[in-house]
Amino acid sequence: MSTTLEQNNRDSLAGKAFPGSQKIYVEGTLPSVKVGMREIRLGPTRTAADGSLRPNPSILVYDTSGPYSDSSAELSYERGLALLRLPWIEVREDSEILSAFSSKYAEERLQAPDLESIRFSHVPKPRRALSGKNVSQMHYARKGIITPEMEYVAIRENQLLVASPEAYSAGKGVAEHPGHSWGASIPKVITPEFVRDEVARGRAIIPANINHAELEPMIIGRNFLVKINANIGNSAIASSIAEEVEKMIWAISWGADTVMDLSTGKNIHETREWIIRNSPVPIGTVPIYQALEKVGGKAEELTWPIFRDTLIEQAEQGVDYFTIHAGVLLRYIPFTAKRLTGIVSRGGSIMAKWCLAHHQENFLYTYFEEICEIMKAYDVSFSLGDGLRPGSIADANDEAQFGELKTLGELTQIAWKHDVQVMIEGPGHVPMHLVQENMAKQLKDCSEAPFYTLGPLTTDIAPGYDHLTSAIGAAMIGWFGTAMLCYVTPKEHLGLPDKEDVKQGVIAYKIAAHAADLAKGHPGAQARDNALSKARFEFRWEDQFNLSLDPETARAYHDETLPADGAKIAHFCSMCGPHFCSMKITEDIREYAEKKKVSLGKALEVGMKEKAEEFRTKGSQIYQ
Amino acid sequence: MSTTLEQNNRDSLAGKAFPGSQKIYVEGTLPSVKVGMREIRLGPTRTAADGSLRPNPSILVYDTSGPYSDSSAELSYERGLALLRLPWIEVREDSEILSAFSSKYAEERLQAPDLESIRFSHVPKPRRALSGKNVSQMHYARKGIITPEMEYVAIRENQLLVASPEAYSAGKGVAEHPGHSWGASIPKVITPEFVRDEVARGRAIIPANINHAELEPMIIGRNFLVKINANIGNSAIASSIAEEVEKMIWAISWGADTVMDLSTGKNIHETREWIIRNSPVPIGTVPIYQALEKVGGKAEELTWPIFRDTLIEQAEQGVDYFTIHAGVLLRYIPFTAKRLTGIVSRGGSIMAKWCLAHHQENFLYTYFEEICEIMKAYDVSFSLGDGLRPGSIADANDEAQFGELKTLGELTQIAWKHDVQVMIEGPGHVPMHLVQENMAKQLKDCSEAPFYTLGPLTTDIAPGYDHLTSAIGAAMIGWFGTAMLCYVTPKEHLGLPDKEDVKQGVIAYKIAAHAADLAKGHPGAQARDNALSKARFEFRWEDQFNLSLDPETARAYHDETLPADGAKIAHFCSMCGPHFCSMKITEDIREYAEKKKVSLGKALEVGMKEKAEEFRTKGSQIYQ
Repeated sequence: MSTTLEQNNRDSLAGKAFPGSQKIYVEGTLPSVKVGMREIRLGPTRTAADGSLRPNPSILVYDTSGPYSDSSAELSYERGLALLRLPWIEVREDSEILSAFSSKYAEERLQAPDLESIRFSHVPKPRRALSGKNVSQMHYARKGIITPEMEYVAIRENQLLVASPEAYSAGKGVAEHPGHSWGASIPKVITPEFVRDEVARGRAIIPANINHAELEPMIIGRNFLVKINANIGNSAIASSIAEEVEKMIWAISWGADTVMDLSTGKNIHETREWIIRNSPVPIGTVPIYQALEKVGGKAEELTWPIFRDTLIEQAEQGVDYFTIHAGVLLRYIPFTAKRLTGIVSRGGSIMAKWCLAHHQENFLYTYFEEICEIMKAYDVSFSLGDGLRPGSIADANDEAQFGELKTLGELTQIAWKHDVQVMIEGPGHVPMHLVQENMAKQLKDCSEAPFYTLGPLTTDIAPGYDHLTSAIGAAMIGWFGTAMLCYVTPKEHLGLPDKEDVKQGVIAYKIAAHAADLAKGHPGAQARDNALSKARFEFRWEDQFNLSLDPETARAYHDETLPADGAKIAHFCSMCGPHFCSMKITEDIREYAEKKKVSLGKALEVGMKEKAEEFRTKGSQIYQ
Repeated sequence: MSTTLEQNNRDSLAGKAFPGSQKIYVEGTLPSVKVGMREIRLGPTRTAADGSLRPNPSILVYDTSGPYSDSSAELSYERGLALLRLPWIEVREDSEILSAFSSKYAEERLQAPDLESIRFSHVPKPRRALSGKNVSQMHYARKGIITPEMEYVAIRENQLLVASPEAYSAGKGVAEHPGHSWGASIPKVITPEFVRDEVARGRAIIPANINHAELEPMIIGRNFLVKINANIGNSAIASSIAEEVEKMIWAISWGADTVMDLSTGKNIHETREWIIRNSPVPIGTVPIYQALEKVGGKAEELTWPIFRDTLIEQAEQGVDYFTIHAGVLLRYIPFTAKRLTGIVSRGGSIMAKWCLAHHQENFLYTYFEEICEIMKAYDVSFSLGDGLRPGSIADANDEAQFGELKTLGELTQIAWKHDVQVMIEGPGHVPMHLVQENMAKQLKDCSEAPFYTLGPLTTDIAPGYDHLTSAIGAAMIGWFGTAMLCYVTPKEHLGLPDKEDVKQGVIAYKIAAHAADLAKGHPGAQARDNALSKARFEFRWEDQFNLSLDPETARAYHDETLPADGAKIAHFCSMCGPHFCSMKITEDIREYAEKKKVSLGKALEVGMKEKAEEFRTKGSQIYQ
């Protein structure tokens, strides 16, 4: 890993990309629970009446960037991140450190001399539940235990309320819109007990492998903030380990809540190790991809032992959730032959091919209980894959898709029997009027397990802009109750995303997720909108930039038209010029009302001619 | 106007930007009705079974680019476009050509020697209704007359059905999703009589000033395709006449259905002349902007005579619709003082300022009947402005906004009494859960007059990405029944859009409008999605690019990862590499089913071992 890489990430994370921001930590009650947040400090408001200054409270922002945005953190890609969760895991005394990897493949990779140059240099020994123990957050939750992970996410979820009450009311006097939650039940304050209860009943998951002690816990569930996932990963065609690690850090710096490593090319094992050791967010994978590589890309040669070893290999590295396409059943496959675009999920098509070749039921389904046993020994969460998701508007909401969804619901019950955490993957390509049916069916068929959708894209006619076609569907389905949105980049259907595409995808999805939080009426969500709009109205340009999802771009766009520094404190903006500003005029209206010490309504009722005269006289001084 | 400009536009419009496309014309039954459309020709499908070629029908695309995309058209910016509508207008014998402009200001500008260098060189004489006549499309419609304009839009609206029935079923065997129309009643085939009826009852408008004979008529109404508007215009700060004309042509080349010239700087009159003479789409303006310039930017000095002269000046130039902020009433203004962001509409704040200064009711309201008299003499349509629209999430759906909306409904009735066409402008900034209320209230309060919204933005936290925050709201409100969506560019709130911003705004809104058409179940809308998805599934890369909203970008993104020409005909794509393609696998599944001459379902039921064996044998040949 190059020094340039480290410096680049440092620059983008620790200040340059987010000016006016600083990292703060809020402590919990349990030992070493210390939740990182981003504080955006704002300038004061200059009152129109007498020019006096009135301070504006800071805004706290949910921070996914981990130690990378902490300028005091000592970072080294070679060593990996500090082990935040280690004391929490150790004190539970329900797991042990193994002397070697349980996966033969993992040991081979660890010993191979030719991999030395690309291997992470401090591969930790794997940890596993003691025999007969279950280390899943769901298991603890069901036993009534509030883990540090649960307290951590509780603080994180309602930081606006807990850590800085005044920030919550930044839009002073402006009531938040109550929202419409479609049956979700978001409390005003998220308590650790609420988190525990949601995890216990399977309505939320905290993906947190005991081998990923670097993780800053987060929660996925429809009574919490809507989360987003960014996919990265090399392929046979392009990209290196360093690029993928850089993409991961880049993605979380812009706000990705989890990252899936979908590598399908060379050195998948080593790439993943680098990513996990340097990731403060949960890492998800699709283990069948690597299993397929192990059999030379021949789906029909996949076997349960090979797949099982791959699961254990990845679980012992610290992967937090696995996409498992166990719902692609033999009987659903014929439904796809009638489709316009058949099977478009990679995992789904691999399993379909295997099923047809062997004329047997999907082995992921057959061995599902065995998979659960592995999951609970490390606390890997299921992301039950929608292998039969539609690949076009034409194929949306068909019998293949909904048949599989029912099976995913049955598998959810089996996983829950093992106290294994579950979320359910969803489409894909869906026109707007069919979006809600997806959510309704998922809630019903899967007993409210969190939904995790890919978009959906709301039209097929805009390749190159599918971050946008899908952000529309993502915002809607997020509002309806989807817990996590898998991003789509502008390169979808066309090529592999580079760093800029990752950024565009993450920002599009931060917008969708936040729009959904607003519409659900998530407590505190509107505080940032209000603070930004207030800054905009008061021509506090720096605050407007700093409060935005992408301060650099907002500033650059502003500077294209009005580059001078003076313009950033001018009481007009580039769109209309100095003589013609609606915001300025509104300010005048208010100032007028204030000076007269009567409410405007009163003033208008009285309707005295002299007031009009006064205003006219004053009016000639307004534009200076 | 420079030759470079002409060449640039030629390049972007006549082929380079839209490869595989050609301009075709479909004739109507009325004289000289000839509707331009874009035909996208597709390559054949190579069948998996025997490699034989099966042709794919062309797809016809609604074409807003006018003669610019016709390589046989003789174009000259200096002369302006051909007068398509002139014979239609002349034959009605209800209007006359005036010897001079009725506006004193217009005549002054025409005579001023110092404007020679920037003046359009062939300014046509103005045309006006004969005394006592009404030349509005609504007037004809109510008299039962189907005008050529009406037949033109009817052909245009259902081109997929009328002109190329086979294209409609391009997704052969794939039923279109029926859609959910929220009470709209879109017929399977749009007839000229249906158009007439919708215009007569005020549910749709055809903005078509008799002084804009260059216009290719289009219709705005919720039983038709959702339209989009692009704003252009210079300001005191930046941009020239040539730039604005270029932006107009650029905007329509990407799909803008109407263009608003919102110029507020120098030479507004001359800029507008150039734009109208070269525009095949309706041009809208906000006349109060120019009126304000005429009084040196001092809102309180505006008078009815100055405004009236400006209306006539612009009507005689050929503006097709005017935004008139006649609903900003004195009694609503106090409501805005409580807001987080007061009044953000420029027109709204000008009128509010005027009202306060004079302590009189808004003169646009007072003189509304006089304005109607002017509108019907030229067939200028009203776009009743929402001067009190919310400027932030916090201010959405408040009493100021909805109070004004009620007044706009009352004004609609007055305009209709004069047979003047009306649409209603809407917000702005609205969180998702409050979007539908806007549409419901508008339909009720304004008796189903077409709604024309700006976005709405669904969150305030992403300046620099407001084309996206607003495309979410635009798609939703379009689905609910909004007839036209005013675009928002990435520069919104930050600066003036340049050409690239205009393109980004138009494409974001084409996506929103099309997503809405799909969700409404507009007949034929899904044909393009189906054709593109089919091309994608069959690895017809060129067709996939050519069918997309932005072929250049789609191609460029593809080529970044796989630049070789060979890759564009390869049966795999860059995302997964040659050994790992889900589309390829699905094709294998189908091919298998076809070869066996049994349905897959049957094959699976029978479940014979030998079939599995056969497939396995064949499987080893699949990846070559």
